[in-house]
Amino acid sequence: MLSKNRISTIQKLHQKKFRMQENLFIAEGAKIVPEILSSAKDTVQVIATQKWIDSNQGILLNHQVEVALPQDFEKISSLSTAPEVLAICSIPNDLQPVYAAGSFVLLLDAIRDPGNLGTIIRLADWFGVDAIVASSDCVEWTNPKVIQASMGSFIRIRPFYTNLQDFIEKLPQQCPLLAADLEGENLYTSNFIPEGCLVLSSESHGLSEYLEHLISRKVHIPRGLNSSEKTESLNVATAAAIFLSEFTRRRAFSSH
Amino acid sequence: MLSKNRISTIQKLHQKKFRMQENLFIAEGAKIVPEILSSAKDTVQVIATQKWIDSNQGILLNHQVEVALPQDFEKISSLSTAPEVLAICSIPNDLQPVYAAGSFVLLLDAIRDPGNLGTIIRLADWFGVDAIVASSDCVEWTNPKVIQASMGSFIRIRPFYTNLQDFIEKLPQQCPLLAADLEGENLYTSNFIPEGCLVLSSESHGLSEYLEHLISRKVHIPRGLNSSEKTESLNVATAAAIFLSEFTRRRAFSSH
Repeated sequence: MLSKNRISTIQKLHQKKFRMQENLFIAEGAKIVPEILSSAKDTVQVIATQKWIDSNQGILLNHQVEVALPQDFEKISSLSTAPEVLAICSIPNDLQPVYAAGSFVLLLDAIRDPGNLGTIIRLADWFGVDAIVASSDCVEWTNPKVIQASMGSFIRIRPFYTNLQDFIEKLPQQCPLLAADLEGENLYTSNFIPEGCLVLSSESHGLSEYLEHLISRKVHIPRGLNSSEKTESLNVATAAAIFLSEFTRRRAFSSH
Repeated sequence: MLSKNRISTIQKLHQKKFRMQENLFIAEGAKIVPEILSSAKDTVQVIATQKWIDSNQGILLNHQVEVALPQDFEKISSLSTAPEVLAICSIPNDLQPVYAAGSFVLLLDAIRDPGNLGTIIRLADWFGVDAIVASSDCVEWTNPKVIQASMGSFIRIRPFYTNLQDFIEKLPQQCPLLAADLEGENLYTSNFIPEGCLVLSSESHGLSEYLEHLISRKVHIPRGLNSSEKTESLNVATAAAIFLSEFTRRRAFSSH
Protein backbone atom coordinates (compact mmCIF):
# COMPACT_ATOMS: atom_id res chain seq x y z
CA MET A 1 0.00 0.00 0.00
CA LEU A 2 1.28 3.45 -0.88
CA SER A 3 1.53 6.19 1.72
CA LYS A 4 -0.58 9.33 1.37
CA ASN A 5 2.59 11.24 0.74
CA ARG A 6 3.72 8.90 -2.02
CA ILE A 7 0.29 9.06 -3.71
CA SER A 8 0.40 12.83 -3.64
CA THR A 9 3.91 12.89 -5.15
CA ILE A 10 2.81 10.67 -8.02
CA GLN A 11 -0.41 12.61 -8.63
CA LYS A 12 1.65 15.76 -9.02
CA LEU A 13 3.40 14.19 -12.01
CA HIS A 14 0.13 14.53 -13.94
CA GLN A 15 1.05 18.23 -14.12
CA LYS A 16 3.70 19.60 -16.43
CA LYS A 17 5.13 21.91 -13.75
CA PHE A 18 6.01 19.04 -11.42
CA ARG A 19 7.29 16.81 -14.21
CA MET A 20 9.76 19.54 -15.17
CA GLN A 21 10.69 20.21 -11.54
CA GLU A 22 11.27 16.55 -10.65
CA ASN A 23 12.53 15.57 -14.11
CA LEU A 24 10.19 12.58 -14.03
CA PHE A 25 7.21 11.34 -16.03
CA ILE A 26 4.76 8.46 -15.66
CA ALA A 27 3.79 5.71 -18.08
CA GLU A 28 0.97 3.32 -17.31
CA GLY A 29 -0.40 -0.08 -18.15
CA ALA A 30 0.57 -3.66 -18.83
CA LYS A 31 1.42 -2.97 -22.48
CA ILE A 32 3.74 0.03 -22.13
CA VAL A 33 5.58 -0.68 -18.84
CA PRO A 34 7.21 -3.98 -19.95
CA GLU A 35 8.38 -2.22 -23.13
CA ILE A 36 10.02 0.51 -21.04
CA LEU A 37 11.71 -2.05 -18.80
CA SER A 38 13.13 -3.96 -21.76
CA SER A 39 14.35 -0.79 -23.48
CA ALA A 40 16.60 0.08 -20.50
CA LYS A 41 16.71 3.62 -21.81
CA ASP A 42 15.36 5.35 -18.74
CA THR A 43 15.86 4.89 -15.01
CA VAL A 44 12.56 3.47 -13.85
CA GLN A 45 10.69 2.92 -10.62
CA VAL A 46 7.86 0.39 -10.99
CA ILE A 47 4.65 0.48 -8.97
CA ALA A 48 2.40 -2.58 -9.31
CA THR A 49 -0.22 -4.69 -7.62
CA GLN A 50 1.06 -7.86 -5.92
CA LYS A 51 -0.89 -9.89 -8.51
CA TRP A 52 0.90 -8.18 -11.40
CA ILE A 53 4.29 -8.59 -9.72
CA ASP A 54 3.66 -12.31 -9.19
CA SER A 55 2.97 -12.89 -12.89
CA ASN A 56 5.80 -10.69 -14.16
CA GLN A 57 8.80 -11.66 -12.03
CA GLY A 58 10.97 -12.26 -15.07
CA ILE A 59 10.93 -8.71 -16.39
CA LEU A 60 11.22 -7.10 -12.96
CA LEU A 61 14.59 -8.64 -12.01
CA ASN A 62 16.79 -5.57 -11.85
CA HIS A 63 14.14 -3.01 -11.06
CA GLN A 64 12.99 -1.31 -7.93
CA VAL A 65 9.33 -2.26 -7.34
CA GLU A 66 6.76 -0.83 -4.95
CA VAL A 67 3.59 -2.76 -4.16
CA ALA A 68 0.31 -0.84 -4.40
CA LEU A 69 -3.34 -1.74 -3.92
CA PRO A 70 -5.93 -1.48 -6.71
CA GLN A 71 -7.46 1.46 -4.81
CA ASP A 72 -4.07 3.22 -4.83
CA PHE A 73 -4.08 2.95 -8.63
CA GLU A 74 -7.44 4.66 -8.80
CA LYS A 75 -5.74 7.63 -7.15
CA ILE A 76 -2.43 7.70 -9.02
CA SER A 77 -3.62 6.76 -12.52
CA SER A 78 -4.52 9.24 -15.24
CA LEU A 79 -6.46 6.58 -17.17
CA SER A 80 -10.22 6.13 -17.00
CA THR A 81 -9.69 2.46 -16.12
CA ALA A 82 -6.95 2.18 -13.48
CA PRO A 83 -4.09 -0.14 -14.55
CA GLU A 84 -2.20 -2.67 -12.41
CA VAL A 85 1.23 -1.27 -13.15
CA LEU A 86 2.77 2.15 -13.55
CA ALA A 87 6.34 3.30 -14.16
CA ILE A 88 7.95 6.50 -12.97
CA CYS A 89 10.75 7.32 -15.40
CA SER A 90 13.46 9.93 -15.49
CA ILE A 91 13.35 12.42 -18.34
CA PRO A 92 16.64 12.12 -20.20
CA ASN A 93 18.50 15.11 -21.58
CA ASP A 94 18.22 14.33 -25.26
CA LEU A 95 20.74 15.88 -27.60
CA GLN A 96 19.55 18.06 -30.44
CA PRO A 97 19.40 15.88 -33.56
CA VAL A 98 21.90 16.83 -36.25
CA TYR A 99 20.63 16.66 -39.80
CA ALA A 100 22.49 14.11 -41.94
CA ALA A 101 22.21 13.93 -45.72
CA GLY A 102 19.42 11.57 -46.83
CA SER A 103 17.69 11.44 -43.49
CA PHE A 104 14.07 12.34 -42.89
CA VAL A 105 13.11 14.63 -40.01
CA LEU A 106 9.64 15.73 -38.92
CA LEU A 107 9.32 19.33 -37.70
CA LEU A 108 6.22 19.97 -35.57
CA ASP A 109 4.87 23.50 -35.38
CA ALA A 110 2.54 24.33 -32.46
CA ILE A 111 0.92 20.89 -32.10
CA ARG A 112 -0.90 21.35 -28.81
CA ASP A 113 -3.30 18.40 -28.68
CA PRO A 114 -1.70 15.48 -26.77
CA GLY A 115 -3.69 12.81 -28.64
CA ASN A 116 -2.43 14.20 -31.95
CA LEU A 117 1.20 14.32 -30.78
CA GLY A 118 1.01 10.76 -29.45
CA THR A 119 -0.46 9.52 -32.75
CA ILE A 120 2.26 11.35 -34.71
CA ILE A 121 4.99 9.73 -32.56
CA ARG A 122 3.44 6.29 -33.23
CA LEU A 123 3.36 7.02 -36.97
CA ALA A 124 6.96 8.31 -36.99
CA ASP A 125 8.05 5.10 -35.29
CA TRP A 126 6.13 2.94 -37.80
CA PHE A 127 7.52 4.76 -40.82
CA GLY A 128 11.08 5.03 -39.48
CA VAL A 129 11.35 8.82 -39.30
CA ASP A 130 14.92 9.67 -38.18
CA ALA A 131 14.01 12.43 -35.72
CA ILE A 132 11.17 14.67 -34.53
CA VAL A 133 11.95 18.31 -33.76
CA ALA A 134 9.14 20.24 -32.07
CA SER A 135 8.58 23.96 -31.51
CA SER A 136 8.59 24.94 -27.85
CA ASP A 137 4.83 25.58 -27.93
CA CYS A 138 4.04 21.96 -28.80
CA VAL A 139 2.61 19.85 -25.97
CA GLU A 140 5.46 18.06 -24.14
CA TRP A 141 5.89 14.36 -24.91
CA THR A 142 5.88 13.50 -21.18
CA ASN A 143 2.17 14.44 -20.97
CA PRO A 144 0.29 11.25 -19.90
CA LYS A 145 -2.10 11.50 -22.89
CA VAL A 146 0.83 11.68 -25.33
CA ILE A 147 2.43 8.63 -23.68
CA GLN A 148 -0.83 6.64 -23.97
CA ALA A 149 -1.61 7.66 -27.56
CA SER A 150 1.94 6.83 -28.69
CA MET A 151 1.42 3.19 -27.57
CA GLY A 152 5.02 2.80 -26.46
CA SER A 153 6.55 4.45 -29.54
CA PHE A 154 7.82 7.32 -27.34
CA ILE A 155 10.44 4.82 -26.12
CA ARG A 156 11.98 4.73 -29.60
CA ILE A 157 11.39 8.25 -30.91
CA ARG A 158 10.93 11.45 -28.94
CA PRO A 159 10.50 15.03 -30.02
CA PHE A 160 13.40 17.35 -29.32
CA TYR A 161 12.03 20.79 -28.30
CA THR A 162 13.68 23.88 -29.67
CA ASN A 163 13.16 27.07 -31.61
CA LEU A 164 12.21 25.84 -35.09
CA GLN A 165 13.45 28.98 -36.81
CA ASP A 166 16.94 28.49 -35.35
CA PHE A 167 16.87 24.81 -36.28
CA ILE A 168 15.85 25.54 -39.87
CA GLU A 169 18.41 28.33 -40.28
CA LYS A 170 21.19 25.94 -39.26
CA LEU A 171 20.20 23.27 -41.80
CA PRO A 172 22.59 22.68 -44.72
CA GLN A 173 21.48 24.66 -47.73
CA GLN A 174 20.79 21.59 -49.86
CA CYS A 175 18.45 20.05 -47.27
CA PRO A 176 14.96 19.72 -48.79
CA LEU A 177 12.39 21.55 -46.67
CA LEU A 178 8.69 20.98 -47.26
CA ALA A 179 5.61 22.15 -45.36
CA ALA A 180 2.11 20.68 -45.33
CA ASP A 181 -0.11 23.63 -46.23
CA LEU A 182 -3.60 23.97 -47.71
CA GLU A 183 -2.22 26.44 -50.29
CA GLY A 184 0.52 24.09 -51.51
CA GLU A 185 1.05 21.84 -54.53
CA ASN A 186 -0.84 18.58 -54.97
CA LEU A 187 0.80 15.92 -52.75
CA TYR A 188 0.26 13.20 -55.33
CA THR A 189 1.58 15.00 -58.40
CA SER A 190 4.25 17.28 -56.89
CA ASN A 191 7.81 16.21 -57.64
CA PHE A 192 9.12 17.02 -54.14
CA ILE A 193 12.11 15.03 -52.90
CA PRO A 194 11.01 12.59 -50.16
CA GLU A 195 13.78 13.36 -47.68
CA GLY A 196 15.01 16.25 -45.56
CA CYS A 197 12.53 18.03 -43.32
CA LEU A 198 8.73 18.01 -43.38
CA VAL A 199 6.90 20.68 -41.36
CA LEU A 200 3.45 19.87 -39.94
CA SER A 201 1.30 22.54 -38.28
CA SER A 202 -1.91 22.36 -36.29
CA GLU A 203 -4.87 22.34 -38.69
CA SER A 204 -6.71 25.15 -36.97
CA HIS A 205 -3.88 27.69 -37.16
CA GLY A 206 -1.91 26.64 -40.23
CA LEU A 207 1.80 27.30 -40.63
CA SER A 208 3.10 29.75 -37.99
CA GLU A 209 3.86 33.16 -39.43
CA TYR A 210 7.52 33.17 -38.34
CA LEU A 211 8.07 30.04 -40.45
CA GLU A 212 6.30 31.29 -43.59
CA HIS A 213 9.31 33.09 -45.09
CA LEU A 214 11.68 30.19 -44.30
CA ILE A 215 9.78 27.61 -46.33
CA SER A 216 9.39 27.96 -50.06
CA ARG A 217 7.90 24.59 -50.97
CA LYS A 218 4.45 23.66 -49.74
CA VAL A 219 2.29 20.65 -50.49
CA HIS A 220 -1.35 19.88 -49.66
CA ILE A 221 -3.54 16.78 -49.58
CA PRO A 222 -6.13 17.18 -52.34
CA ARG A 223 -9.74 16.15 -51.85
CA GLY A 224 -10.96 13.03 -53.61
CA LEU A 225 -12.97 12.78 -56.84
CA ASN A 226 -16.48 13.06 -55.42
CA SER A 227 -15.74 15.11 -52.32
CA SER A 228 -18.40 17.61 -51.34
CA GLU A 229 -15.75 20.36 -50.97
CA LYS A 230 -17.38 21.31 -47.68
CA THR A 231 -14.81 19.77 -45.35
CA GLU A 232 -12.40 22.44 -44.28
CA SER A 233 -9.34 20.44 -43.37
CA LEU A 234 -8.06 17.17 -42.01
CA ASN A 235 -6.91 16.60 -38.45
CA VAL A 236 -3.10 17.03 -38.18
CA ALA A 237 -2.59 13.42 -37.06
CA THR A 238 -4.43 12.04 -40.12
CA ALA A 239 -2.55 14.52 -42.33
CA ALA A 240 0.69 13.21 -40.77
CA ALA A 241 -0.37 9.64 -41.63
CA ILE A 242 -0.96 10.59 -45.26
CA PHE A 243 2.28 12.58 -45.66
CA LEU A 244 4.42 9.92 -43.99
CA SER A 245 2.80 7.24 -46.14
CA GLU A 246 3.47 9.17 -49.35
CA PHE A 247 7.08 9.90 -48.30
CA THR A 248 7.57 6.20 -47.53
CA ARG A 249 6.04 5.08 -50.82
CA ARG A 250 8.43 7.35 -52.74
CA ARG A 251 11.50 6.56 -50.61
CA ALA A 252 11.16 2.80 -50.53
CA PHE A 253 8.64 1.56 -53.06
CA SER A 254 8.65 3.74 -56.13
CA SER A 255 10.92 4.95 -58.87
CA HIS A 256 9.93 8.61 -58.24
CA MET B 1 -34.00 28.85 -18.97
CA LEU B 2 -34.74 25.16 -19.46
CA SER B 3 -37.05 23.25 -17.15
CA LYS B 4 -35.67 20.41 -15.04
CA ASN B 5 -37.70 18.05 -17.12
CA ARG B 6 -36.33 19.35 -20.38
CA ILE B 7 -32.75 19.14 -19.08
CA SER B 8 -33.29 15.55 -18.05
CA THR B 9 -34.79 14.65 -21.46
CA ILE B 10 -31.75 16.10 -23.24
CA GLN B 11 -29.27 14.44 -20.87
CA LYS B 12 -30.83 11.08 -21.66
CA LEU B 13 -29.84 11.53 -25.31
CA HIS B 14 -26.20 11.03 -24.23
CA GLN B 15 -27.18 7.36 -23.95
CA LYS B 16 -27.64 5.08 -26.94
CA LYS B 17 -30.78 3.48 -25.49
CA PHE B 18 -32.68 6.77 -25.36
CA ARG B 19 -31.41 7.97 -28.73
CA MET B 20 -32.82 4.82 -30.31
CA GLN B 21 -36.07 5.10 -28.33
CA GLU B 22 -36.68 8.77 -29.18
CA ASN B 23 -35.07 8.58 -32.63
CA LEU B 24 -33.10 11.73 -31.80
CA PHE B 25 -29.42 12.66 -31.42
CA ILE B 26 -27.61 15.80 -30.30
CA ALA B 27 -24.90 17.83 -32.01
CA GLU B 28 -23.15 20.67 -30.21
CA GLY B 29 -21.17 23.80 -30.79
CA ALA B 30 -20.97 26.92 -32.93
CA LYS B 31 -19.15 25.12 -35.73
CA ILE B 32 -21.40 22.11 -36.26
CA VAL B 33 -24.90 23.50 -35.55
CA PRO B 34 -24.90 26.14 -38.34
CA GLU B 35 -23.75 23.43 -40.77
CA ILE B 36 -26.68 21.24 -39.75
CA LEU B 37 -29.12 24.13 -40.15
CA SER B 38 -27.86 24.94 -43.63
CA SER B 39 -27.93 21.31 -44.73
CA ALA B 40 -31.68 21.06 -44.06
CA LYS B 41 -31.31 17.30 -44.02
CA ASP B 42 -32.68 16.68 -40.55
CA THR B 43 -35.54 18.11 -38.55
CA VAL B 44 -33.81 20.17 -35.90
CA GLN B 45 -34.66 21.83 -32.60
CA VAL B 46 -32.09 24.44 -31.60
CA ILE B 47 -31.19 25.31 -28.01
CA ALA B 48 -28.99 28.37 -27.56
CA THR B 49 -28.05 31.18 -25.21
CA GLN B 50 -29.75 34.53 -25.85
CA LYS B 51 -26.33 35.93 -26.79
CA TRP B 52 -25.81 33.30 -29.48
CA ILE B 53 -29.34 33.77 -30.82
CA ASP B 54 -28.80 37.54 -31.08
CA SER B 55 -25.70 37.12 -33.24
CA ASN B 56 -27.11 34.33 -35.41
CA GLN B 57 -30.61 35.52 -36.33
CA GLY B 58 -29.96 34.97 -40.02
CA ILE B 59 -29.47 31.24 -39.87
CA LEU B 60 -32.24 30.64 -37.33
CA LEU B 61 -35.10 32.00 -39.46
CA ASN B 62 -37.15 28.87 -40.01
CA HIS B 63 -36.12 26.96 -36.94
CA GLN B 64 -37.66 26.36 -33.58
CA VAL B 65 -35.34 27.84 -30.93
CA GLU B 66 -35.31 27.46 -27.16
CA VAL B 67 -33.37 29.88 -24.98
CA ALA B 68 -31.08 28.36 -22.35
CA LEU B 69 -28.71 29.77 -19.74
CA PRO B 70 -24.97 29.02 -19.74
CA GLN B 71 -25.54 26.95 -16.58
CA ASP B 72 -28.16 24.87 -18.45
CA PHE B 73 -25.51 24.07 -21.05
CA GLU B 74 -23.19 22.77 -18.37
CA LYS B 75 -25.88 20.20 -17.60
CA ILE B 76 -26.96 19.23 -21.11
CA SER B 77 -23.59 19.27 -22.89
CA SER B 78 -21.36 16.24 -23.37
CA LEU B 79 -18.33 18.45 -24.07
CA SER B 80 -15.70 19.37 -21.49
CA THR B 81 -16.26 23.05 -22.32
CA ALA B 82 -19.99 23.74 -22.53
CA PRO B 83 -21.02 25.33 -25.86
CA GLU B 84 -23.56 28.12 -26.45
CA VAL B 85 -25.65 26.18 -28.92
CA LEU B 86 -26.89 22.64 -29.29
CA ALA B 87 -29.13 20.95 -31.82
CA ILE B 88 -31.51 18.05 -31.26
CA CYS B 89 -31.92 16.27 -34.56
CA SER B 90 -34.10 13.45 -35.77
CA ILE B 91 -32.36 10.28 -36.89
CA PRO B 92 -33.39 9.66 -40.49
CA ASN B 93 -34.12 6.21 -41.85
CA ASP B 94 -31.28 5.95 -44.31
CA LEU B 95 -31.65 3.52 -47.17
CA GLN B 96 -29.11 0.77 -47.65
CA PRO B 97 -26.59 1.97 -50.24
CA VAL B 98 -26.66 0.02 -53.49
CA TYR B 99 -23.27 -0.68 -55.02
CA ALA B 100 -22.83 0.91 -58.46
CA ALA B 101 -19.99 0.04 -60.83
CA GLY B 102 -16.96 2.27 -60.30
CA SER B 103 -18.01 3.57 -56.92
CA PHE B 104 -15.94 3.29 -53.77
CA VAL B 105 -17.51 2.04 -50.54
CA LEU B 106 -15.91 1.71 -47.11
CA LEU B 107 -16.95 -1.33 -45.05
CA LEU B 108 -16.28 -0.99 -41.32
CA ASP B 109 -15.85 -4.15 -39.27
CA ALA B 110 -16.29 -3.84 -35.47
CA ILE B 111 -15.00 -0.26 -35.09
CA ARG B 112 -16.01 0.44 -31.50
CA ASP B 113 -14.04 3.56 -30.60
CA PRO B 114 -16.15 6.69 -31.27
CA GLY B 115 -13.11 8.93 -31.89
CA ASN B 116 -11.90 6.53 -34.58
CA LEU B 117 -15.31 6.32 -36.26
CA GLY B 118 -15.67 10.12 -36.25
CA THR B 119 -12.21 10.53 -37.79
CA ILE B 120 -13.02 7.93 -40.46
CA ILE B 121 -16.27 9.74 -41.36
CA ARG B 122 -14.29 13.02 -41.71
CA LEU B 123 -11.74 11.28 -43.94
CA ALA B 124 -14.44 9.61 -46.06
CA ASP B 125 -16.02 13.04 -46.60
CA TRP B 126 -12.65 14.60 -47.55
CA PHE B 127 -11.78 11.86 -50.02
CA GLY B 128 -15.30 11.56 -51.49
CA VAL B 129 -16.05 7.98 -50.50
CA ASP B 130 -19.47 7.08 -51.96
CA ALA B 131 -20.85 5.25 -48.92
CA ILE B 132 -19.90 3.78 -45.54
CA VAL B 133 -21.42 0.45 -44.53
CA ALA B 134 -20.80 -0.61 -40.92
CA SER B 135 -21.23 -3.91 -39.11
CA SER B 136 -23.90 -3.82 -36.40
CA ASP B 137 -21.22 -4.02 -33.68
CA CYS B 138 -19.61 -0.72 -34.75
CA VAL B 139 -20.29 2.26 -32.46
CA GLU B 140 -23.38 4.16 -33.71
CA TRP B 141 -22.73 7.42 -35.56
CA THR B 142 -25.18 9.29 -33.31
CA ASN B 143 -22.78 8.87 -30.35
CA PRO B 144 -21.80 12.44 -29.25
CA LYS B 145 -18.07 11.63 -29.53
CA VAL B 146 -18.49 10.43 -33.11
CA ILE B 147 -20.41 13.61 -33.97
CA GLN B 148 -17.65 15.80 -32.48
CA ALA B 149 -14.74 13.92 -34.06
CA SER B 150 -16.40 13.97 -37.49
CA MET B 151 -16.39 17.79 -37.41
CA GLY B 152 -19.68 18.08 -39.27
CA SER B 153 -18.84 15.47 -41.89
CA PHE B 154 -21.59 13.21 -40.51
CA ILE B 155 -24.01 15.63 -42.20
CA ARG B 156 -22.70 14.56 -45.60
CA ILE B 157 -21.80 10.89 -45.08
CA ARG B 158 -23.22 8.46 -42.55
CA PRO B 159 -22.59 4.79 -41.95
CA PHE B 160 -25.42 2.45 -42.83
CA TYR B 161 -25.53 -0.37 -40.25
CA THR B 162 -26.14 -3.90 -41.43
CA ASN B 163 -24.81 -7.43 -41.47
CA LEU B 164 -21.58 -7.13 -43.49
CA GLN B 165 -21.66 -10.75 -44.60
CA ASP B 166 -25.10 -10.28 -46.17
CA PHE B 167 -23.97 -7.02 -47.77
CA ILE B 168 -20.86 -8.63 -49.26
CA GLU B 169 -22.74 -11.68 -50.51
CA LYS B 170 -25.15 -9.46 -52.44
CA LEU B 171 -22.37 -7.50 -54.19
CA PRO B 172 -22.01 -8.05 -57.95
CA GLN B 173 -19.37 -10.67 -58.63
CA GLN B 174 -17.05 -8.28 -60.44
CA CYS B 175 -16.98 -5.77 -57.54
CA PRO B 176 -13.38 -5.52 -56.23
CA LEU B 177 -13.23 -6.35 -52.53
CA LEU B 178 -10.10 -5.54 -50.53
CA ALA B 179 -9.34 -5.77 -46.81
CA ALA B 180 -6.69 -3.96 -44.80
CA ASP B 181 -4.83 -6.75 -43.03
CA LEU B 182 -1.35 -7.09 -41.52
CA GLU B 183 -0.84 -10.33 -43.48
CA GLY B 184 -1.68 -8.78 -46.84
CA GLU B 185 0.28 -7.54 -49.87
CA ASN B 186 2.31 -4.33 -49.77
CA LEU B 187 -0.07 -1.36 -50.18
CA TYR B 188 2.42 0.57 -52.30
CA THR B 189 3.38 -2.18 -54.76
CA SER B 190 0.16 -4.24 -54.94
CA ASN B 191 -1.75 -3.86 -58.21
CA PHE B 192 -5.19 -3.78 -56.54
CA ILE B 193 -7.96 -1.87 -58.36
CA PRO B 194 -8.77 1.35 -56.45
CA GLU B 195 -12.56 0.99 -56.48
CA GLY B 196 -15.24 -1.29 -55.10
CA CYS B 197 -15.21 -2.06 -51.38
CA LEU B 198 -12.45 -1.61 -48.81
CA VAL B 199 -12.86 -3.37 -45.44
CA LEU B 200 -11.27 -1.81 -42.35
CA SER B 201 -11.19 -3.63 -39.00
CA SER B 202 -10.24 -2.52 -35.51
CA GLU B 203 -6.46 -2.83 -35.08
CA SER B 204 -6.66 -4.81 -31.87
CA HIS B 205 -8.86 -7.61 -33.23
CA GLY B 206 -8.02 -7.71 -36.93
CA LEU B 207 -10.49 -8.88 -39.57
CA SER B 208 -13.51 -10.62 -38.01
CA GLU B 209 -13.49 -14.36 -38.54
CA TYR B 210 -16.84 -14.50 -40.34
CA LEU B 211 -15.42 -12.15 -43.01
CA GLU B 212 -12.13 -14.03 -43.52
CA HIS B 213 -13.47 -16.51 -46.10
CA LEU B 214 -15.36 -13.82 -48.01
CA ILE B 215 -12.31 -11.72 -48.79
CA SER B 216 -9.51 -13.09 -50.91
CA ARG B 217 -7.41 -9.97 -51.44
CA LYS B 218 -5.68 -8.30 -48.51
CA VAL B 219 -3.26 -5.40 -48.36
CA HIS B 220 -1.13 -4.02 -45.53
CA ILE B 221 0.74 -0.79 -44.84
CA PRO B 222 4.46 -1.64 -44.78
CA ARG B 223 6.80 -0.10 -42.25
CA GLY B 224 9.27 2.52 -43.45
CA LEU B 225 12.96 2.09 -44.30
CA ASN B 226 14.45 2.62 -40.84
CA SER B 227 11.55 1.46 -38.72
CA SER B 228 12.48 -0.32 -35.51
CA GLU B 229 10.01 -3.16 -36.31
CA LYS B 230 8.81 -2.92 -32.74
CA THR B 231 5.54 -1.09 -33.39
CA GLU B 232 2.78 -3.63 -33.58
CA SER B 233 0.21 -1.83 -35.67
CA LEU B 234 -1.29 1.51 -36.56
CA ASN B 235 -4.49 2.93 -35.15
CA VAL B 236 -7.45 2.16 -37.46
CA ALA B 237 -8.17 5.85 -38.08
CA THR B 238 -4.58 6.52 -39.26
CA ALA B 239 -4.71 3.31 -41.32
CA ALA B 240 -7.93 4.62 -42.90
CA ALA B 241 -6.16 7.90 -43.73
CA ILE B 242 -3.35 6.03 -45.48
CA PHE B 243 -5.64 3.65 -47.42
CA LEU B 244 -8.01 6.40 -48.54
CA SER B 245 -5.05 8.53 -49.60
CA GLU B 246 -3.54 5.72 -51.67
CA PHE B 247 -6.93 4.89 -53.26
CA THR B 248 -7.37 8.58 -54.12
CA ARG B 249 -3.87 8.89 -55.56
CA ARG B 250 -4.52 5.92 -57.86
CA ARG B 251 -8.09 6.92 -58.77
CA ALA B 252 -7.46 10.55 -59.56
CA PHE B 253 -3.77 11.33 -59.84
CA SER B 254 -1.91 8.38 -61.27
CA SER B 255 -1.76 6.18 -64.33
CA HIS B 256 -1.95 3.02 -62.17
